Amino acid sequence: MTNITQLRCINCSRTYQPRPGFYTCPICGSTDGILDVEYDYDYINKYISKKSLAGNREPSMWRYRPFLPVAQEGPLPPLRVGWSPLYRSGRLGAELGLKELYIKDDGINPTGSLKDRPSAVAVARALAEGAGVVACSSTGNAASSLAGAAASVGLKAVIFVPGRAPQGKVAQLLIFGATVISVQGSYEDAFRLSAAAIEEHGWYNRNAAINPYLVEGKKTACLEVAEQLQWEVPDWVVLSVGDGCTMAGAWKAWVDLKKAGWIEKLPRMLGVQAEGCCPITRAFREGTRVRPMEENTLADSIAVGVPRNPEKALRAVRDSRGTMINVSDEEILAAMRVLGRTSGVFGEPAGVAGTAGLIKAVREGIIKPEERVVVLVTGNGLKDVANAIKAAGEPIRVAPSLEALHKALGDLKLPNYGWGYVPEPRLAERR
Amino acid sequence: MTNITQLRCINCSRTYQPRPGFYTCPICGSTDGILDVEYDYDYINKYISKKSLAGNREPSMWRYRPFLPVAQEGPLPPLRVGWSPLYRSGRLGAELGLKELYIKDDGINPTGSLKDRPSAVAVARALAEGAGVVACSSTGNAASSLAGAAASVGLKAVIFVPGRAPQGKVAQLLIFGATVISVQGSYEDAFRLSAAAIEEHGWYNRNAAINPYLVEGKKTACLEVAEQLQWEVPDWVVLSVGDGCTMAGAWKAWVDLKKAGWIEKLPRMLGVQAEGCCPITRAFREGTRVRPMEENTLADSIAVGVPRNPEKALRAVRDSRGTMINVSDEEILAAMRVLGRTSGVFGEPAGVAGTAGLIKAVREGIIKPEERVVVLVTGNGLKDVANAIKAAGEPIRVAPSLEALHKALGDLKLPNYGWGYVPEPRLAERR
Repeated sequence: MTNITQLRCINCSRTYQPRPGFYTCPICGSTDGILDVEYDYDYINKYISKKSLAGNREPSMWRYRPFLPVAQEGPLPPLRVGWSPLYRSGRLGAELGLKELYIKDDGINPTGSLKDRPSAVAVARALAEGAGVVACSSTGNAASSLAGAAASVGLKAVIFVPGRAPQGKVAQLLIFGATVISVQGSYEDAFRLSAAAIEEHGWYNRNAAINPYLVEGKKTACLEVAEQLQWEVPDWVVLSVGDGCTMAGAWKAWVDLKKAGWIEKLPRMLGVQAEGCCPITRAFREGTRVRPMEENTLADSIAVGVPRNPEKALRAVRDSRGTMINVSDEEILAAMRVLGRTSGVFGEPAGVAGTAGLIKAVREGIIKPEERVVVLVTGNGLKDVANAIKAAGEPIRVAPSLEALHKALGDLKLPNYGWGYVPEPRLAERR
Repeated sequence: MTNITQLRCINCSRTYQPRPGFYTCPICGSTDGILDVEYDYDYINKYISKKSLAGNREPSMWRYRPFLPVAQEGPLPPLRVGWSPLYRSGRLGAELGLKELYIKDDGINPTGSLKDRPSAVAVARALAEGAGVVACSSTGNAASSLAGAAASVGLKAVIFVPGRAPQGKVAQLLIFGATVISVQGSYEDAFRLSAAAIEEHGWYNRNAAINPYLVEGKKTACLEVAEQLQWEVPDWVVLSVGDGCTMAGAWKAWVDLKKAGWIEKLPRMLGVQAEGCCPITRAFREGTRVRPMEENTLADSIAVGVPRNPEKALRAVRDSRGTMINVSDEEILAAMRVLGRTSGVFGEPAGVAGTAGLIKAVREGIIKPEERVVVLVTGNGLKDVANAIKAAGEPIRVAPSLEALHKALGDLKLPNYGWGYVPEPRLAERR
């Protein structure tokens, strides 16, 4: 793996060489001693270029393999992750008064979320390191993506969930053949037991807060944005923030591309948290360290009251001259509807929190009409149908007769056939 | 649209020219007078070739536009539909004793099912014909795919559902901004009211049984299989059968490719129905016309007791020298587990009924070990979490302590790190 020069502690700046089972700075400890992956950009530029990508038909994140912390040869997990579509959203843009708005739909990944990207990296590294088991504690997208990726290569996944985890989410893990340990206690109990068991057995550790390679997997979402925009850097990249790792990964993409000499400027990052659980926004605004907070939002995938790795995210927002913003649950549900209606994209609440933040940021003047904006939709709406029901409203109930239908439709003013409907130009193009 | 020569009635062989609002043979009527789309293959071969496809980076069904009944220029709906991955499933193949098994995962489509393909064609045609409204009656994948595709271009979708339609499925339609008419009556009531309203208003009709162009959209799944296998035709194509339109579409792909001179041989088609609702299997075996049957299976997307267009499907199976097979609900749930565990693909019950049928067909000697087999997974498991729970089994419950975990894991014989795990060769490659 000659593309990595070293791992650097973001706290003390000490550097280390990658080795199996090594995740955090031993001096600063597993809470503070988060590592950053540093690359040899000359090496990368030998193996990949804008031109080589233009001729590369691989529709997955592995088209950027030289930018990734995986073996540069040998097997990769086969599930097709990434190269998700970037839609130009003319109608939502017009409603918001934005000239150029793009939506990146990561809900189409194999298990339905952006987390398929870091999980693919975790499984690729586990294969390369000869690990027989990959493990994590999660009830959400990290768990399902890890279980799916592990199943695709025949690795054993061990996943720790709290006793109260929803049956549907546990079912998905079991379908993928994962060993699911239901810890009869809180999420914290499940996390602690998983950490002890991973340590004891030496299983491959897929916890985004600890494992420095996972942020690199997340990075591929924005490597794709850059290529899909033909290397014209947007003014803003907007996304929801839970533990902060996705923000860290999204920013790392632009930093890597700049260091490699592929782009000139950097975008500003807008991070969006839920009002009911916004420890990173609070720390950003107050300029303090992150303190724990209650988890009081329906956007469960970003309800992280004790983010274990917020520093990289805070650094990303600050370094980019970006900002953090909060949205209410009502604004999140409204964003589900707006996004679905204007774009045909159905996101889960946490997945569309970025869109809700975008809408608010435009109204507050943070984002200007002439700026080019990309918003990430990070998870599929099918992941959380219960909240879709809350957002959706009610159908029109009619008795089974044309008379009843006429009466009900009277107010809707639906066009008849042949009205000569002409779609708006550039209604919603795909890049 | 000069690639279409004519529409031909499959009952009386009369031919017609396509025109707006024309769906079935007026002589034979809307039940028997189903039309087949016939192409000018010389025209097609002028605009597309194996070589041009090899250089085409478009990762969607529209890479086959000259083979499709849409305007050959002008706007297409932007949601990225198709070019779904084809996985070589070494582990499932090995378990079944099959030398060469491929899984086509259509659950990754924008709204989670193969139905996104015909709905994209419907919306493209509605745009071309200047229709302002598209309509159908459905509670399932046809409805959600139509609502999503319509939203992506700003067309109005009107969808008729029976009063008992599950709230979650209705919610998805509402999120996409569809006008959902909840008909207080049976599915048959909803269907009849939709037909009357479509007729009255002249809305664009997206009912697969009536609209001859939808089968053409479904065809793209197998056009992709052919290209992904580098034009080496498989011995068998296996898929689940509900109303029969997907079978008709899958077969049409191979027929078109042969008529266009792209392939020499044709595959055999294996259609799979649920034991509790198998009117097409019964008709195939008895050599009779299809008679109505109860809908007694948990695989709701193929629970079609009164298939409105079974003739094309029956013709496909017969012409291909294929066969029909039934599977029980237990076999379907078992297939969900087997597919998830061996491949990392999570399908809904109807989506994996084909896999269940494959397993049975191998056991019964219908499919031979040395034959090359492709099985379609037609819908995402997230569409039906309730049945995933039924299939999944239970997690391992432990108290939050290492001692409890040791005891629980004792029997599992999980490998520690460093056992030198080596993945099987060709474990699950992607083509």
